[in-house]
Amino acid sequence: MDQIERDPHVDPGRLDALSSALAAEGFAAAIVSHPRDVLYFAGTAQPANLLVVPGHAPTLFARRFADLARAQTHVGDVREAPGLSAVSARLDELGVQAGVVGLALDAIPASLADKARGTLAPLRVEPVDALLAERRMIKDEAEIAALRRAADLYTYVHAAIAAYARPGATELEVAAELAAVLRRAGHDGLTFHRRWDAQLHPEGALASGPNLWTFSGQAISITGVGLTRAVPFGASERVLRTGDLLNLDLGLVRDGYHADMARTYVLGAPSAEVRELAAAVRAIHAAALAAVAPGVPARAPYDAAREVARDRGVEAFFQGHGDAHGPYIGHAIGLELDEPPVLGPGARTPLRAGMVLTIEPKLTVPGVGAVNLEDDLVVRDDGPELLSAIPADVFSISHGRLEAIA
Amino acid sequence: MDQIERDPHVDPGRLDALSSALAAEGFAAAIVSHPRDVLYFAGTAQPANLLVVPGHAPTLFARRFADLARAQTHVGDVREAPGLSAVSARLDELGVQAGVVGLALDAIPASLADKARGTLAPLRVEPVDALLAERRMIKDEAEIAALRRAADLYTYVHAAIAAYARPGATELEVAAELAAVLRRAGHDGLTFHRRWDAQLHPEGALASGPNLWTFSGQAISITGVGLTRAVPFGASERVLRTGDLLNLDLGLVRDGYHADMARTYVLGAPSAEVRELAAAVRAIHAAALAAVAPGVPARAPYDAAREVARDRGVEAFFQGHGDAHGPYIGHAIGLELDEPPVLGPGARTPLRAGMVLTIEPKLTVPGVGAVNLEDDLVVRDDGPELLSAIPADVFSISHGRLEAIA
Repeated sequence: MDQIERDPHVDPGRLDALSSALAAEGFAAAIVSHPRDVLYFAGTAQPANLLVVPGHAPTLFARRFADLARAQTHVGDVREAPGLSAVSARLDELGVQAGVVGLALDAIPASLADKARGTLAPLRVEPVDALLAERRMIKDEAEIAALRRAADLYTYVHAAIAAYARPGATELEVAAELAAVLRRAGHDGLTFHRRWDAQLHPEGALASGPNLWTFSGQAISITGVGLTRAVPFGASERVLRTGDLLNLDLGLVRDGYHADMARTYVLGAPSAEVRELAAAVRAIHAAALAAVAPGVPARAPYDAAREVARDRGVEAFFQGHGDAHGPYIGHAIGLELDEPPVLGPGARTPLRAGMVLTIEPKLTVPGVGAVNLEDDLVVRDDGPELLSAIPADVFSISHGRLEAIA
Repeated sequence: MDQIERDPHVDPGRLDALSSALAAEGFAAAIVSHPRDVLYFAGTAQPANLLVVPGHAPTLFARRFADLARAQTHVGDVREAPGLSAVSARLDELGVQAGVVGLALDAIPASLADKARGTLAPLRVEPVDALLAERRMIKDEAEIAALRRAADLYTYVHAAIAAYARPGATELEVAAELAAVLRRAGHDGLTFHRRWDAQLHPEGALASGPNLWTFSGQAISITGVGLTRAVPFGASERVLRTGDLLNLDLGLVRDGYHADMARTYVLGAPSAEVRELAAAVRAIHAAALAAVAPGVPARAPYDAAREVARDRGVEAFFQGHGDAHGPYIGHAIGLELDEPPVLGPGARTPLRAGMVLTIEPKLTVPGVGAVNLEDDLVVRDDGPELLSAIPADVFSISHGRLEAIA
């Protein structure tokens, strides 16, 4: 692996675009504090506050290790300051004495925002989350290349799974092996989430048998049940059996970028019921992908997917079961696993060329299991470009061999 | 592994004690929202708001899956409510119409706190972080047993390291194997941090050679440099060589509880310089442990450690090097890896029986490497009780065998 490739390529133009967007939305300034945002705009993951004032050059206030931040960033003015008083002094110096300063209030702790409000008064602090997310929404080709390398990590899992997922092994044993396979292949080893209370194992959410229809891990999704109710998601100590369905849903991180992919495997020969579910999930997956185009609203892939689920008579199992159905068919990915927009009912954000999305239809049938088919794509002018290099199917594992059940 | 043991044992008395503490500090109520706090007080990691009003029975508002939360918690009154308006209505019903409601403002996002302020007005929202941390500070025997099981995970790493850490292997390859060893042994597979921007790999911070004295990963500590500046900590692709020092610093999580341990290994025969550093770090470690007793201020272990470092002429390498020295010799551990108090200069919190602390002296010598000796202990009336079952030493690895260099 090439170190230059692995370090993020940060277009300095991102800062100018941010500056213009701030001015257009009436912000006097923004203080970018969330590490993933600082990385995106300034090229360093070191703890820092990045001050952006429309009409002025930005300043990066490194909370420590200013020399290290200086060596990594293209921002010309790097200073060392642990807190916000130096930022406030700089705003004064630039004559910013009234108006609104944007902070990412969805991402920073309340106590930090309260402190900022005290330090920056009479300037008013308001959320700048949506504007920052909007800046990060369209990926450039360097980002898309990193996302493709991230998605490529799934090929290692797919190549290895048949050797580990055999009757008699526990979910945990399979998870342990996959964690090692992924790390060896260059997985950055952990995932980043925007949502304050979200987490995922490096080897993803692994679940089998009844754990596929058991809701356990915070979200209406297939999360696995974990080893303890203290960490109620991911692999458990359940022993795999012939006939089981096994689901792998992974956050794949390389060069700081997250792919999000899932496949379902059958241990042994698939039943007629599983074949039918697999055919249905393939059809839903195809319909959702076909609905992706620049200009269509973010709800379009969801609506298309749900319509196929209805036509095929599997709506009751679509994105959940019983009273609980997740209101989404996918979302955007990037430096975090859970980027906007969510592709869900009513979502109106228009899709645009350069967005990178994950499409994740799931059918969950209590008593049977679940099938899950998640792939990543780039929205292009001439249609979606898949990042995933694995066939969109459910696979059977028999005698250590993998076979698509199509 | 026994599922009953793995699920947290939650003493219902914790809620009464919280209620009394809130009353004593003048809070009209607290809304416990941070998942680790909810787990501690209510016994479930499901997304929920736990309303505690002195003089009244608590109510758990599950954000979803109320039945699941109900099956896990000892709280009698469980309702389903995604947001805070039901909590506000309940406060009204209980006649709480003025005063202060505590929220963990260090832990929840600013936008959530702002929303709470709007919903709960005219009630005032104030931080309750210190009070919640104080409740969690003294561990009961069930928690101490879980922490001991967590610390035991290090024995698997220690038994395996000699097979993997050999000249020619990369840090990443060693990290991948250790990740699998730990997960197989029952590591919950990820770590929980109170600090909003902290993260650690499941296989810890692994670093060797020059990566031992390179500051890279947000903290003044030995973090490793990672695979990319986007995730600038943990294992890198550096190839291990004979004579290297290799440091493993791990967050070990079992049953939701975190041990924090580190050891340093020498590849091949240790030099005289490394032997001397090892002797110094053992002496500092012993002095810090000896300073732990109920009633002494939290700075005592730090002061004792630093004094030995000074006496031995290694103060320049103590907890950092150059201008950067971490102001700590340890901290408390529990449901999160970074619990208060920090054992640092000036810290006045008195140590108390039942606190569980990690003691982590490090000596970092640019050009040579670093030695790191981190162990966990329970403060007991008759002295510290070690949770770690590995000798407090630096170890050499030669021909696949481990030897203490004492």
